[in-house]
Amino acid sequence: MKTLYVVGTGPGGKDLITPQALAAVEDSTDLVAYGLYMDLLGELVDSKTKHDLPLGEEIERARLALNLAAQGKTTALLSSGDIGIYAMATLVFELLDRQVQGLEDNPEWLEIDIQVTPGITAMQAGASKMGALLGHDFCAISLSDLLTPWETIETRIKAAAMADFVVSFYNPVSTKRTWQLGKAKEILLAHRPASTPVILGRNLTRETENIIITTLGELDSTRVDMLTLVQIGNSASKLFSTGSKEWIYTPRGYSRKLTIATP
Amino acid sequence: MKTLYVVGTGPGGKDLITPQALAAVEDSTDLVAYGLYMDLLGELVDSKTKHDLPLGEEIERARLALNLAAQGKTTALLSSGDIGIYAMATLVFELLDRQVQGLEDNPEWLEIDIQVTPGITAMQAGASKMGALLGHDFCAISLSDLLTPWETIETRIKAAAMADFVVSFYNPVSTKRTWQLGKAKEILLAHRPASTPVILGRNLTRETENIIITTLGELDSTRVDMLTLVQIGNSASKLFSTGSKEWIYTPRGYSRKLTIATP
Repeated sequence: MKTLYVVGTGPGGKDLITPQALAAVEDSTDLVAYGLYMDLLGELVDSKTKHDLPLGEEIERARLALNLAAQGKTTALLSSGDIGIYAMATLVFELLDRQVQGLEDNPEWLEIDIQVTPGITAMQAGASKMGALLGHDFCAISLSDLLTPWETIETRIKAAAMADFVVSFYNPVSTKRTWQLGKAKEILLAHRPASTPVILGRNLTRETENIIITTLGELDSTRVDMLTLVQIGNSASKLFSTGSKEWIYTPRGYSRKLTIATP
Repeated sequence: MKTLYVVGTGPGGKDLITPQALAAVEDSTDLVAYGLYMDLLGELVDSKTKHDLPLGEEIERARLALNLAAQGKTTALLSSGDIGIYAMATLVFELLDRQVQGLEDNPEWLEIDIQVTPGITAMQAGASKMGALLGHDFCAISLSDLLTPWETIETRIKAAAMADFVVSFYNPVSTKRTWQLGKAKEILLAHRPASTPVILGRNLTRETENIIITTLGELDSTRVDMLTLVQIGNSASKLFSTGSKEWIYTPRGYSRKLTIATP
């Protein structure tokens, strides 16, 4: 059996890597990833053949993983977070689909047993670190307009604003992507208060983790980079302090029930 | 130090429980949960004092967990999936916030060190089992109108339809909640093709897992119950077959790039 594991290794902290992800890495002889993700796995990857392709070469990485597996090498393609969310899994299936359509010339890809392992994604890490921001309906939007037209992205931000979703912005800012987050802020501000809590999470669950709490009104794009997740509460999300720690949560709507239930 | 762990134990499969979740359970003397979730943990929970409150008593469960921790018992409050997503975490913080506001009479709650551990949620389990449905922008909407007015839910479905989000419906159907999913289908059908792939995932990653693949046009509420997650592709999501297996993915927008890159 030829096997390709498509594995999300979680946000960074070793204690958030699932046993299924570890087992997939252990079972593999070859690992394909952007180098940084492999470093997070530590000694586990020492004995493996590592194929480290740089950021930007995503298609080549997916293709290489399929080719290695087709050659009979048990292979794990790795991304941090959930590999199914803004990451490599979808490219693997897009390539496979092209093969089925006859647009690729790699019939051996179709013999591979593919196993996808989900992982904790940044949005979950950020919410859990600060409490329970994702307690009610939410959406995730990538602000990267490299592969998606800005008009589509803007429509999604407007819909999220209108529907009062908690929003997690992936890929909010890059060297060339500087104004998009400001525009998103403007759209959301038309529908929810300036006091809406915002989490800026960088390197979540890693040793270098840095979490900044701010508000929608005070959100400053210059404090955000491509490694930062930007999470914006809905109109009911609340920041409070117990004295020793600040927490943010989005209520599910129990407040009326709580009021009735309390003596 | 008084400690309350607020822990998501993942969709069901033991190999998707994070080491952080297991460590929290191990460190606790008392576990608070709906019984089924504890069963999934097997022998690990044998030596613990178990507080098993039935479904429907969510507020009581959160209150009990806070009270036990405040008494000095290291306690873990457990939900399956991600406890921060449509689950118990937000209630813990809502109660804590009420204490800060003086609406509760439990000042000892404020001395508790609270640690939230995220878990793999059903939406990730369903997507990974079938490929990569969550490969691009997505939202999660609960169809439960017990605590959220139907008008709010309907606005969110309309926004999701308009914005072409991949949609995961949590709590789609119950004994009393019979027409909501049909209405959601109707709204989405106005914006995306009847051929849009749909995943009905029941007991995902458990031994009793049952996954049905259908289309938006064929979506039949009578095949869905309260344990089913309903996931609906966006207008670009695609179902294809390699002969031995069907896959569903949502492209990120690489197809133009792929066409250029292929000889």
